[in-house]
Amino acid sequence: MNRRSALKGILGAVLCPLCAKGGFAAEGAHWSYEGNTGPAKWGEIDNASRVCSVGVQQSPIDIKGSIDAKLPPLQFVWSKRAGTIVNNGHTIQLDFPEGNTLSIERQKYALLQMHFHRPSEHMIGGKGYPMEVHFVHRSAAGSLAVVGILMTAGKPNAAFNRIVQSMPQKKGHAAADPAIDPMALLPDRHSYYRYSGSLTTPPCSETVDWHLLIEPVSVAEADIAAFAKLYPMNARPVQPPHRRFLLKSG
Amino acid sequence: MNRRSALKGILGAVLCPLCAKGGFAAEGAHWSYEGNTGPAKWGEIDNASRVCSVGVQQSPIDIKGSIDAKLPPLQFVWSKRAGTIVNNGHTIQLDFPEGNTLSIERQKYALLQMHFHRPSEHMIGGKGYPMEVHFVHRSAAGSLAVVGILMTAGKPNAAFNRIVQSMPQKKGHAAADPAIDPMALLPDRHSYYRYSGSLTTPPCSETVDWHLLIEPVSVAEADIAAFAKLYPMNARPVQPPHRRFLLKSG
Repeated sequence: MNRRSALKGILGAVLCPLCAKGGFAAEGAHWSYEGNTGPAKWGEIDNASRVCSVGVQQSPIDIKGSIDAKLPPLQFVWSKRAGTIVNNGHTIQLDFPEGNTLSIERQKYALLQMHFHRPSEHMIGGKGYPMEVHFVHRSAAGSLAVVGILMTAGKPNAAFNRIVQSMPQKKGHAAADPAIDPMALLPDRHSYYRYSGSLTTPPCSETVDWHLLIEPVSVAEADIAAFAKLYPMNARPVQPPHRRFLLKSG
Repeated sequence: MNRRSALKGILGAVLCPLCAKGGFAAEGAHWSYEGNTGPAKWGEIDNASRVCSVGVQQSPIDIKGSIDAKLPPLQFVWSKRAGTIVNNGHTIQLDFPEGNTLSIERQKYALLQMHFHRPSEHMIGGKGYPMEVHFVHRSAAGSLAVVGILMTAGKPNAAFNRIVQSMPQKKGHAAADPAIDPMALLPDRHSYYRYSGSLTTPPCSETVDWHLLIEPVSVAEADIAAFAKLYPMNARPVQPPHRRFLLKSG
């Protein structure tokens, strides 16, 4: 039994209660991307999730009518590699140890995890992308900054290929792979769209400062297909912008 | 009986039902700037006014932490002069005939009325001003654009002096004065702060696109004192910014 298999066994035991439908209660009620428990019903899951349907700052959105603004640069210091890769039943998620930070002016955030959506959740001018990756950061005070990167099919990306190779095929399973460098998923330019939004999964809390990079990252079509075999559709539809300003950094 | 007195009589009859406390029901319940019907209680007036207390896009605000943004110029075409000056029990208001417009890019608004607050409702970096004037515009589709101008004591302003001379001393009374040119209350520079906010009086509807000019307009201290004799305090306190972006035009 190699190290990865051993970890799968241990984490599998911890995570597997979540696989059974009844077990989701521990993390809130069951939800999905289609049918009776799909996005249109998320607001009915429980009180905390009501904002999914009644909120006015929901994510994702279709990016249009942005305002050019003088925004501070995103300073990524992601020197630590991912600890574990989890197939959590909604997506593939990589969890990070302490030490990776995002700084935006004087505000510092810790990178908690990254995960993937297929197809992209955000759109740009009505156009979707094959996939989207979300890097979830939290400040010491608890505010969330998510960096979203649109993913296109084209030149292969070694880090994404490695993720696809390592990801557990079964829901509720985890694997360890200390070789995945999150920096490798960043495109060259870090200019971004900025708006005030929400989690894109229940309970849809309106606590996320969204930073969607303007430049997408290219990954191999075969790797997208491998992800799509596990998760053919795990994207929430775009939400109304209401009265939010959508800013674009220079 | 001169023309102004005649108009006072006519409009007085129309407006005076509003003076009596019971009469306010026609326009919603009674409210004020102090005590049991003051700003802290506005949310309890009726269902429509609940947003005064539970809203997250309320006005006024203290302007701080603004983001420099590329915003379109405000194009004022205010060629028509004010029709009537009304003392409506909450402020002095000048109503305009059709024909005065504000254009912001392709969006066109009609100037409906202007009115005054003492002291200013908006603050800049915690600093208030002696007064503030609001120019209320509405688009054909019903959206509101208010242009706010802070007022300082200093060099006299002929238009404001004329308003103070013409304003009815009694609540519920109106006067006609076709000589007041709204353009005369605009400062030289029209750069502005922009945010999504609300009416600053009940029902506090979150339907106002706020444009607060950065440059204040100077008026005579004696004219501020004359206004203050009628309305010593008719300003709502600043409201929490919540997650709104505050933009500053170049």
